Amino acid sequence: MPSQFDPASGTRDFLGADVERREHAFDVIRSVFTAYGYEPLQTPAFERLDVLMGKYGDEGDKLVFKILRRGEHEASGEADLALRYDLTVPTARVLAAYGSQIPLPYKRYAIGLVWRADRPGKDRYREFAQCDLDTLGSSSILADAEALCAQHDALAALGLPQFRILLNSRRVLAGLLEAFSVPGEIGSQVLISLDKLDKLPAAEVVAELAGRGLDAALAGELVDTLTAPDSTDRIRIVLKRTEAGTAGLDEVDTLLSVVSGQIPAERIAFTPRLVRGLSYYTGPIWELVAAGISGSIGSGGRYDHLIEQLGGPDVPATGSSIGVERILPLLPDAGAPAHARLDVAVTVMAPGLASDAFGLAASARAAGLRSSVYLGSSGKLGRQLKWASDAGARWCLIYGERERQAGVVTVRDMRSGEQAEVPVTELSAHLAGLDR
Amino acid sequence: MPSQFDPASGTRDFLGADVERREHAFDVIRSVFTAYGYEPLQTPAFERLDVLMGKYGDEGDKLVFKILRRGEHEASGEADLALRYDLTVPTARVLAAYGSQIPLPYKRYAIGLVWRADRPGKDRYREFAQCDLDTLGSSSILADAEALCAQHDALAALGLPQFRILLNSRRVLAGLLEAFSVPGEIGSQVLISLDKLDKLPAAEVVAELAGRGLDAALAGELVDTLTAPDSTDRIRIVLKRTEAGTAGLDEVDTLLSVVSGQIPAERIAFTPRLVRGLSYYTGPIWELVAAGISGSIGSGGRYDHLIEQLGGPDVPATGSSIGVERILPLLPDAGAPAHARLDVAVTVMAPGLASDAFGLAASARAAGLRSSVYLGSSGKLGRQLKWASDAGARWCLIYGERERQAGVVTVRDMRSGEQAEVPVTELSAHLAGLDR
Repeated sequence: MPSQFDPASGTRDFLGADVERREHAFDVIRSVFTAYGYEPLQTPAFERLDVLMGKYGDEGDKLVFKILRRGEHEASGEADLALRYDLTVPTARVLAAYGSQIPLPYKRYAIGLVWRADRPGKDRYREFAQCDLDTLGSSSILADAEALCAQHDALAALGLPQFRILLNSRRVLAGLLEAFSVPGEIGSQVLISLDKLDKLPAAEVVAELAGRGLDAALAGELVDTLTAPDSTDRIRIVLKRTEAGTAGLDEVDTLLSVVSGQIPAERIAFTPRLVRGLSYYTGPIWELVAAGISGSIGSGGRYDHLIEQLGGPDVPATGSSIGVERILPLLPDAGAPAHARLDVAVTVMAPGLASDAFGLAASARAAGLRSSVYLGSSGKLGRQLKWASDAGARWCLIYGERERQAGVVTVRDMRSGEQAEVPVTELSAHLAGLDR
Repeated sequence: MPSQFDPASGTRDFLGADVERREHAFDVIRSVFTAYGYEPLQTPAFERLDVLMGKYGDEGDKLVFKILRRGEHEASGEADLALRYDLTVPTARVLAAYGSQIPLPYKRYAIGLVWRADRPGKDRYREFAQCDLDTLGSSSILADAEALCAQHDALAALGLPQFRILLNSRRVLAGLLEAFSVPGEIGSQVLISLDKLDKLPAAEVVAELAGRGLDAALAGELVDTLTAPDSTDRIRIVLKRTEAGTAGLDEVDTLLSVVSGQIPAERIAFTPRLVRGLSYYTGPIWELVAAGISGSIGSGGRYDHLIEQLGGPDVPATGSSIGVERILPLLPDAGAPAHARLDVAVTVMAPGLASDAFGLAASARAAGLRSSVYLGSSGKLGRQLKWASDAGARWCLIYGERERQAGVVTVRDMRSGEQAEVPVTELSAHLAGLDR
């Protein structure tokens, strides 16, 4: 039952270990992208309204969170700013603003929150992280290959157990339509129907194609070719009949060859029926899928004219995006440091011993351990040990008047209950040598 | 001159090395806070409007960015959500929402952006990062001491060259007013005037105090005591005349004693005239100052009733805040990794060599180096070397048909121009052994 203290609808609070797991995943992705020479870009959470509106289609525009004007203008009920809806439009704006100072090709990554006023649901949030990597200003197929490899390496580094890359090209699709004599004016409609072959029975897709005006026999043949067990081989033959098809096939094969040393063959496959919903792609396209997960966990492709359409300069572009919110729940625990709140708990047996207790905690930190002194009001050892145990501490440092006089500290193993006296001056080295 | 492509007023784009410098600073702070056993908390960028309104006073309320309702409600011109204004009110909400699941004391840190519709100016932004550390649910003075130490350690770890902590207590101020027989009803006004002793001549402050209704002789004596060279000693004597003063002095001395092993004595000083503008503090208060910087670079204090006033449960609380946006420009370059865009640039001398070039780049990454293949269209070595040089690469890997046949790669030192041939299989080890 939602309470007045819950976060706003569609948003989430992240506490303790959940934050650490997310940040760890972002760190891993960031370090892979950085190793490939992509540079980080951070743009503000909000943009001027005119920068965003009209860029996402009518449906997208409705999902933009708009910010009310301020001061005397608030009463107008008008908005002048809006929360960013993705990381691509702000990048187009940055290229337009700093174009001459940014050497091309500009390889950049962006990891950040975006906001969409979607109806919240299972795994659908109004605030979520995106994780994009793009090369702007290069028409080389090697830029596509790099985006594929960097995305692959990031997912592998995260420890994602099983995933596959489905690779295609817009030119393959164009060649396919041409080879099957699909009339140009219904081409994109036909592609939208073919995109459903994953979810719908073949017969339904055939019917839908016929409904869209495609000759029924042709529709049957097209779907048959795309769903046959030897579909890829058959399509390779068909594609060679047209110029676009030959070019598309060449694009796919070049990509497969260039990445062959970096991406294991079983992880990537030419997938002629992959369409990708968005119409702005102009060359290679790909999607990442994982066992047991419906839908994609990542995607990418070349979009040579989009940056200009979004308000930036006319530069060729290619890139990939990791569906990081979908991936986070799939990651093995081993991928993240599963820390307890504390490694070392330090007792404070009397007010006069507090300064020494702070020194003991500092020694534990110097040994790389999370450490805190007792902040409660009880002077009883039992209560303080219970606190240490509740905090998940691996060791408790007990330091009373007896220890102070002897210049030692009692190190208690909270798992075994065993205790050892250690000279205060040797504490840091002692703790560093223990097994966690 | 602002262009249509600039970020929205008061916000900033961060590119490449600037992002890395910021993230490095946040990482350093995070690791210190974590070592102290503080847990991260991340709340959404926006809250329901009612969670924020009425919490920051009339002036603050006006600076809240409000988000317009959506869909059919957009036309109403009403807001239902708002961007967070600080990290404290969301924390109070989180405590109210998850209180029973969060063991107290709850030691949490939060590093995140906040948004305020202030008039933008030099060093004043509408989107900026805050960096807070708080202990909720402990009335122990050790919680104050920990907040002081963690804040100090974080700034020291950042490499901030010189800073000092000015320490006082609200009880010291209460004792001071009592000792000078300041009428209770003008007490807080008197403190506001005394807070100006840093900026205004003593005589002006005396005049202001008289204007607020304080006896002129008393005002003179008070200011004299606070500004005398031996002011701290004189005030110590004065404070012992009252109960509140004695308690305040005891609080300050206990804190100084507890942190004495962790914070060098020259970095922290009892500063009786430190007031801190905000009225919600109830115990120790402190401010951090740095040579050559007007105003504070950090602050903290105990605020035992604020969380309840902000909509949370009634828990004692203390914490500190680092003025991270003010500190970032002060940090020595040594504090951040000053990376070039690339460490290793890999030539692609012919399309058929691209796959091998990808393998060479991967070997360089395996040696911990940022590495990218050439993404341009020229097959000329001169052009590709210019690209390597422009990208700041330390080495360029040259790999042509001759190298392929010999199973070697030419490693060019971009500083000296020297070249060495290295077997491809030994490349990673070779690069790892070179001096950057």
